[in-house]
Amino acid sequence: MAGDPEAVAKAFTDHYYSTFDTARPNLAGLYQDQSMLTFEGQKFQGTQAIMGKLTSLPFQACKHHISSLDAQPSLSGGVLVFVTGQLLPEGETNPLKFSQTFHLAPVGGSFVVTNDLFRLNYG
Amino acid sequence: MAGDPEAVAKAFTDHYYSTFDTARPNLAGLYQDQSMLTFEGQKFQGTQAIMGKLTSLPFQACKHHISSLDAQPSLSGGVLVFVTGQLLPEGETNPLKFSQTFHLAPVGGSFVVTNDLFRLNYG
Repeated sequence: MAGDPEAVAKAFTDHYYSTFDTARPNLAGLYQDQSMLTFEGQKFQGTQAIMGKLTSLPFQACKHHISSLDAQPSLSGGVLVFVTGQLLPEGETNPLKFSQTFHLAPVGGSFVVTNDLFRLNYG
Repeated sequence: MAGDPEAVAKAFTDHYYSTFDTARPNLAGLYQDQSMLTFEGQKFQGTQAIMGKLTSLPFQACKHHISSLDAQPSLSGGVLVFVTGQLLPEGETNPLKFSQTFHLAPVGGSFVVTNDLFRLNYG
């Protein structure tokens, strides 16, 4: 089910960040009630709480640029995804460096995000 | 078994980085044959291969400084640990920023590292 972890990670991050950048509310379908987000140290659980945080960030459109993408299979049959990159909010000129880790769990031929941890890397 | 994820993550990272900085070969006890390391995109599996990489890095003593430490319970009953920080090799003056993700699996009252992903965050 998990397929090739690198291929899963590439397909997931392409979809996740393009959706984040252009249609953020549509990320809701990637989370479920057990999902956890730790965003700059703040903790959220469940689709509603997570989407509440992601859709209330102080910028609308933005652009993620991926610098590195690593993947490993997890013990539970899912995929660990580890990203470093840059985030440029619309209207800003200085990109913010970030790191993010996802755990993807296989559900019915696709994947959901069970764990999401995000940190900005201050210069 | 997993206990409080934050407490596990704090105890683990205190032990891991102090061992890395002063007695790197002793990290061997934290890995097992199923463990995976992705280090700057290079992949290693098993204690021997992982320790071969970690003990052949081009510096001996070093100092890790942790900037952020986040933890979440994992689906498999373990703990996801997400670290950002700075690494200062002995004799250097400019610390290197890094991000690292571990998955810890409970084994007999303790934990082993099943997944380890490390990236430098270039400026």
